[in-house]
Amino acid sequence: MLLVGTVVVDSSTVIHDGAVVVEGSTIESVGERADIIERYPDHERAEYDVLLPGLVGGHIHSVQSLGRGIADDTELLDWLFDYILPMEASLSADEMELAAKLGYLELIESGTTTCIDHLSVAHADRAFEAAGELGIRGVLGKVLMDKNAPDELLEDTDTGINETERLIRAYHDSFDGRLRYAVTPRFAVSCTEDCLRSARAIADKYDGVRIHTHASENRDEIAKVKESTGKRNIHWLDEVGLTGEDVVLAHCVWTDESEREVLAETGTNVTYCPSSNMKLASGIAPILDYLDRGINVALGNDGPPCNNTLDPFTEMRQASLLQKVEHLDPTATPASAIFDMATINGAAAAGIDRVGALREGWRADIIGLRTDITRATPLHDVLSHLVFAARGDDVQFTMVDGRVLMENGTVTCVDADAIREETTEISSNLDIKQSVTY
Amino acid sequence: MLLVGTVVVDSSTVIHDGAVVVEGSTIESVGERADIIERYPDHERAEYDVLLPGLVGGHIHSVQSLGRGIADDTELLDWLFDYILPMEASLSADEMELAAKLGYLELIESGTTTCIDHLSVAHADRAFEAAGELGIRGVLGKVLMDKNAPDELLEDTDTGINETERLIRAYHDSFDGRLRYAVTPRFAVSCTEDCLRSARAIADKYDGVRIHTHASENRDEIAKVKESTGKRNIHWLDEVGLTGEDVVLAHCVWTDESEREVLAETGTNVTYCPSSNMKLASGIAPILDYLDRGINVALGNDGPPCNNTLDPFTEMRQASLLQKVEHLDPTATPASAIFDMATINGAAAAGIDRVGALREGWRADIIGLRTDITRATPLHDVLSHLVFAARGDDVQFTMVDGRVLMENGTVTCVDADAIREETTEISSNLDIKQSVTY
Repeated sequence: MLLVGTVVVDSSTVIHDGAVVVEGSTIESVGERADIIERYPDHERAEYDVLLPGLVGGHIHSVQSLGRGIADDTELLDWLFDYILPMEASLSADEMELAAKLGYLELIESGTTTCIDHLSVAHADRAFEAAGELGIRGVLGKVLMDKNAPDELLEDTDTGINETERLIRAYHDSFDGRLRYAVTPRFAVSCTEDCLRSARAIADKYDGVRIHTHASENRDEIAKVKESTGKRNIHWLDEVGLTGEDVVLAHCVWTDESEREVLAETGTNVTYCPSSNMKLASGIAPILDYLDRGINVALGNDGPPCNNTLDPFTEMRQASLLQKVEHLDPTATPASAIFDMATINGAAAAGIDRVGALREGWRADIIGLRTDITRATPLHDVLSHLVFAARGDDVQFTMVDGRVLMENGTVTCVDADAIREETTEISSNLDIKQSVTY
Repeated sequence: MLLVGTVVVDSSTVIHDGAVVVEGSTIESVGERADIIERYPDHERAEYDVLLPGLVGGHIHSVQSLGRGIADDTELLDWLFDYILPMEASLSADEMELAAKLGYLELIESGTTTCIDHLSVAHADRAFEAAGELGIRGVLGKVLMDKNAPDELLEDTDTGINETERLIRAYHDSFDGRLRYAVTPRFAVSCTEDCLRSARAIADKYDGVRIHTHASENRDEIAKVKESTGKRNIHWLDEVGLTGEDVVLAHCVWTDESEREVLAETGTNVTYCPSSNMKLASGIAPILDYLDRGINVALGNDGPPCNNTLDPFTEMRQASLLQKVEHLDPTATPASAIFDMATINGAAAAGIDRVGALREGWRADIIGLRTDITRATPLHDVLSHLVFAARGDDVQFTMVDGRVLMENGTVTCVDADAIREETTEISSNLDIKQSVTY
């Protein structure tokens, strides 16, 4: 396949009249349109206004999708224990699969091609199968909770670890390698020391398995960890083995100097989730400081109940604007830095090579946007547009591993209307507690 | 015309299976769908998923639209004096008209039906004519600058005031009353005392004319006002007559206790522009304090060069999220408070009655959104959806004063493609300084 358009290779290179050739699951060539067409005259062609690397959602909760908008105006721990965990606990296997499909559909439609996805305690198989069917790339993991959880989600330590190992064997490096596994303790508040140490041990046992958890999102969370362990959260995670280049810590809003040193020294990945941190009033993550220290910072939407969307373009805009105002510095997090977070930094956090830029030999994860709309007119600067003005709604084309999941604005990998209709039908019957706004 | 759908009457009332009847420029009836259809069986019907009052842009720069994305990563005064004022100065009358049309087009497409619009020094007639032609409701004003301005924008005081009076006579209460006038000093930095006092005098001379200016957006701006007047900015504006119920002050980010007392005591309107304040790193306006004091707070996108869009839904989301994180309080600015800012509060700031809710006898300014999309699925709570998940892209129907400006997603009031194409053509030839991101 030969894709033509303005090609955003990465945050520093744009080919204004460019083209990308895809062979199988790989990018065979990237260059000037005229050159490429001359070299590949017989390839099937498709044209989009802007072509760019598929975006990486560095912290996603696909299976929370049925709870979109149910818990506005609540603080993290109330939000989690009063609304979200009861919802997760209430879902049947079929409902969990539907939630996952809805989440992946929204990601695919709005330009995310790789997600680091925090599932729930039960029915993780169904999410892996859904991701495999729809075709997204991802690092998914069943959640571990062996304390401080609603009864329906509480597992004993061995059960959770054994189930994790079963899932790793079943799904790590599955679906042509598109799906990989991350051992996924919920957070230190809901996991015993044995659980956290076992998470590290099981991750180490299998090549390429990651570790993904929440950390230091909220001050009450940190207080609880301090109370039970006597340590700051990042120090505790470090002690039990949950730092390192294979670890993705979502949020890291509240960290002190010594914790930041640990993150930097261990090469731990941090995922910045600005919308979620704002809506849950968690706080503003010290992203400039993390970047200064060389910490790899990815970007994530978190989940629909705290965002309330999975639009990666809205998240890029939010990510930059929040740092600019926090530091009263308009040069903070320019478009290029944010684009890196949403592409190559995310791929690095996920531990997936050859993802996050449009380069020869790299995996064919590509999205195409339209710019024939007022919001993109005039278009002085493509990168500025992508970060500050574009929306997931502009995405018209999504390819993962060379497979077309959406083209000309129509999802081809699944019956999108059927997923939406089934969701609407099921949601009206779910017994979900929700906040009320009017 | 009979519109059916979920009817959001205002921030506290939603009719889930509702209808709105429009006669001429007025809402004749609002109620349950079945009742309304029985009463008006022969009316032409149109159906949209959600019907709500058209939104009010409480501080807009339509004529800056050609500068979308030209000045990322710059601070207010550099942004203004190095990029924006030179661009405004460079535009011909035809280009200014095109810029205005592009701005109004984006507003109409994304759901804003009333704007409080800060034009430029020259060619204001062309913006009024464009607004009249496209059909938006607005309070527009030519800018006054009689000091600290580029030579091309600098006017002597009398010239600016005389031109203002000419425009008031020509356009205040024009186009069936849809367009009204606001005397529009740029800001205290660029206006002499004589200019500011004359602005008040000329506004008082004509019934219903407003005053619209920028105030206390940025700390350097405040320092300059202090240096030249010896006073804090709001006190200075108060001294020269630019406070009161007919005054709209955009931003008010940096105000002290005594200034806030003045705003409250005088009934001055404040327009909150969160995206602009974040992107220009101006600061976070003390909106909760303003609301506590009973100050009327509207919401505005500001202009495309600092936002970089005019999407009012993105602005609603931003408005709430920013206050929640600033105060580390998830209950701050719930959806209902934000919806009020974008509707009735904006109408109050604009001084336009019977706008901002869908009520019998009120003006027929109505928009319709689609919710048959993944981002709106499931839809637990309409108001939450509108503030936290909807986008201007979802708007399918826009009516102002009973005239349909967009229906079924297609703009009917103007040739939208032609405006976009002309903009793209002209922009590539404009000699505009712009920041570079890659």
